Amino acid sequence: MELLKRRICDSGRAIGNDILKVDSFLNHQLDVQLFQEIGKEFQRRFRTERITKILTVEASGIGVACITAQYFNNVPVVFAKKSTAKNLNAEVYESNVYSFTKGAHYIIRVDKKYLKAEDNVLIIDDFLANGKAVLGLLDLCRQAGAHAVGVGIVIEKSFQEGRGAVLKENIRLESLARIKSLKEGKIIFMD
Amino acid sequence: MELLKRRICDSGRAIGNDILKVDSFLNHQLDVQLFQEIGKEFQRRFRTERITKILTVEASGIGVACITAQYFNNVPVVFAKKSTAKNLNAEVYESNVYSFTKGAHYIIRVDKKYLKAEDNVLIIDDFLANGKAVLGLLDLCRQAGAHAVGVGIVIEKSFQEGRGAVLKENIRLESLARIKSLKEGKIIFMD
Repeated sequence: MELLKRRICDSGRAIGNDILKVDSFLNHQLDVQLFQEIGKEFQRRFRTERITKILTVEASGIGVACITAQYFNNVPVVFAKKSTAKNLNAEVYESNVYSFTKGAHYIIRVDKKYLKAEDNVLIIDDFLANGKAVLGLLDLCRQAGAHAVGVGIVIEKSFQEGRGAVLKENIRLESLARIKSLKEGKIIFMD
Repeated sequence: MELLKRRICDSGRAIGNDILKVDSFLNHQLDVQLFQEIGKEFQRRFRTERITKILTVEASGIGVACITAQYFNNVPVVFAKKSTAKNLNAEVYESNVYSFTKGAHYIIRVDKKYLKAEDNVLIIDDFLANGKAVLGLLDLCRQAGAHAVGVGIVIEKSFQEGRGAVLKENIRLESLARIKSLKEGKIIFMD
């Protein structure tokens, strides 16, 4: 997606060899107009699918997911909640996620009422790096018996293992910008 | 806002005397179509103000804030990040917030780049209860020298002290649904 790639070049900042700061438009300050274009692009890529629900994880996935839902007939958005506490609760699906950034595990949870066997789920997130969050969301879908239709990612760090891990699950992955490398603070795209 | 009140009656659930569960449409599963009507109503109420930024706090404020921004010429949304760790960082504004629900303090933070003295800020949040989160957001605005134009709340629990605490700051408060009481599991509105 050219508009997004331009924005990453103009406003993104590579730190070290693997961190890309895009908090001016994607995950701290949010550019809603850009999100609209992102939503339209996800709609274009998944338009042949019958989506009934968008699933994301707090916090930075929520804005993109809500704006995107508008281009999918306003389907409900569900965000998985993060917590560090294990919590025996029969009313929720939960999955264990390892965060490389924080070097720690956390739990993501969705109330069973909001993820059903009849759902066709589009998973949306802002970043794909190691893929652990997306695998956790896929795990929640599996527990619910819901059909995960695909995964829509705004920025994929293609030099990390997330893409391979998601594709191994036999699920369609659409990333709007794919970063080949951030070496020496230079942002290089895949194509 | 009648549509919202009807939805609260239909889908909300009062638990004990002071908890209102609205996770089927407001803070776990998100009804984007309802959020559009909420956004239009905030726009109607604040239409005479020149808003340059919408400020909220993760996580459940983000969806409403992003959809609402569309009715304010797509102004940027900034969400304050929550953390429990004190963190000496000269690049952020931070404020200490006490959560009655969790019985614990947490810190909210905004990068100084995204809140400026020239900003006219509309604060948006899903709930107003004790008002501590909104007071924290007002504190961040004050530190930045930004002008807080008003506070837009989806559901106000008017039997708690949030409303009084916010009005004491001499700031305009617009709550789209005001709950007078949840006693014995019955949802009673202010008017």
